[in-house]
Amino acid sequence: MNIFEAENLYFLGPEGTYAHSAMQKFVKNLDIKVKNIIPVYPITAVFKAIEKDKNAIAVLPIENSIEGIVRETIDNLVKLEDKAFKIVAETVIPINHCLMSKATDKADIKEVISHAQALGQCAGYLCKNFPNVRITPASSTSEAAKSLQDKDETHAAIAAEVAANLYGLNILDRNINDVLDNKTRFILLARGERPATGYDKTSIFFSVNNEPGALFNVLSIFNMYKINMLFIDSRPSRKKMGEYNFSIDLEGHQTDAKVEAALNLAAEYTGNLIITGSYPRFKD
Amino acid sequence: MNIFEAENLYFLGPEGTYAHSAMQKFVKNLDIKVKNIIPVYPITAVFKAIEKDKNAIAVLPIENSIEGIVRETIDNLVKLEDKAFKIVAETVIPINHCLMSKATDKADIKEVISHAQALGQCAGYLCKNFPNVRITPASSTSEAAKSLQDKDETHAAIAAEVAANLYGLNILDRNINDVLDNKTRFILLARGERPATGYDKTSIFFSVNNEPGALFNVLSIFNMYKINMLFIDSRPSRKKMGEYNFSIDLEGHQTDAKVEAALNLAAEYTGNLIITGSYPRFKD
Repeated sequence: MNIFEAENLYFLGPEGTYAHSAMQKFVKNLDIKVKNIIPVYPITAVFKAIEKDKNAIAVLPIENSIEGIVRETIDNLVKLEDKAFKIVAETVIPINHCLMSKATDKADIKEVISHAQALGQCAGYLCKNFPNVRITPASSTSEAAKSLQDKDETHAAIAAEVAANLYGLNILDRNINDVLDNKTRFILLARGERPATGYDKTSIFFSVNNEPGALFNVLSIFNMYKINMLFIDSRPSRKKMGEYNFSIDLEGHQTDAKVEAALNLAAEYTGNLIITGSYPRFKD
Repeated sequence: MNIFEAENLYFLGPEGTYAHSAMQKFVKNLDIKVKNIIPVYPITAVFKAIEKDKNAIAVLPIENSIEGIVRETIDNLVKLEDKAFKIVAETVIPINHCLMSKATDKADIKEVISHAQALGQCAGYLCKNFPNVRITPASSTSEAAKSLQDKDETHAAIAAEVAANLYGLNILDRNINDVLDNKTRFILLARGERPATGYDKTSIFFSVNNEPGALFNVLSIFNMYKINMLFIDSRPSRKKMGEYNFSIDLEGHQTDAKVEAALNLAAEYTGNLIITGSYPRFKD
């Protein structure tokens, strides 16, 4: 069975956001074949959808370079009752806000609409280029772009390029966020496993007791096997006082001899060690 | 000089959000004395305000139990040119969404307004209690509450309790989020240092080269000194390929002999080790 074929593909909605771009990139690069592509909001609802749907794949955000890890995704992934669901791919989408409008000339713009966070991220650009326009917050960048359909040419929205395509708007300026190098990493979930490619990572989740040395013992295993850590996140477990949960990405595939041996040993020093996926690393 | 006295206190705005509650809690518990209390949005703008204002303190979110670490806060904290600014306190605010309205009877409600994320977090409650109302997204929970001022008694908002107080609304239901135990940790920034209390933490930031053992060497120092880690976050540095940044919270105060010795040794194995604060740990 091809893990990239399914009846339904769910992605974090609404349409026209950066998750939509990530989904399109996965579909193209991995030659994904699905009958239906369905935006779902919020993250937890995407997981509810795939738990009920035996013939599904899903696209979700896992980490943003400014905002940090998306724990709602990891929490739900770890709790999935259907353990066949794994991370099978990752991709990175640059957060490049665009100014878009029915107008073709920036001089026509009297009002700019977007999500408050995107407006904040483009405050410098707006002050410099549109010192006198009205600024109006919307519930999402995509919703701002959509709302232009009922508005005249004096209105513009700040949103992802994919939203301009979706709602037939002209892009007046690209990459207008003041903080550049804002990126979001997305994962693809499917029932199945990816074979080793030689440039892979393995995502794991486990808990240890909160006592000096508990995490250190686990990390010393990876160190002894000369396995590099690519990512680590920690926080208190909400199940038990003094217990900590960790999400770690390791270099290498779970079928590599040293990764396999290290994970077997680590299982002795952790509670509830789960491999959430072993898959090719993103390459620019 | 009392570090809890200043001309201006800046907090992450708008008014009526959970950052507002955190600010009020700090003011009360630490007996903060300021002339002006100023909401600023977004996080980066709060840092710009305190860099320019020599007589200021600030309240910012640092970590959410669902969303993860707030890297925008850490990034700005590390980049602050005025190194006298430190984390001097932390507090934890439960994210308890309330349903509020001019109405006093839930049976009158025909439309519920809130931020899309809050609507998502209360989807189960809304389906069960208001299966037929209209759901309308707003740019923030606080904005939703504020908008009720111009609306009749058939409208309700989902927001923080502080927003109901701010806009004179009745609370019809408390704690309506489907996922309970959603909390945000906030920090107080001021120019100065806190003395040791016997129940402290020390927040540090550093970079290491991305090679097997680099982080492990640093963590082995804390292990040898029997210092527990309370929190760890990692990610690629955006300055240099193959360089990783770490944020770690250690148990203990920077003036504790073993913490001081460990940090001195750790400085030899890291690039750019910064102590972002040493302050009392939050107690429930």
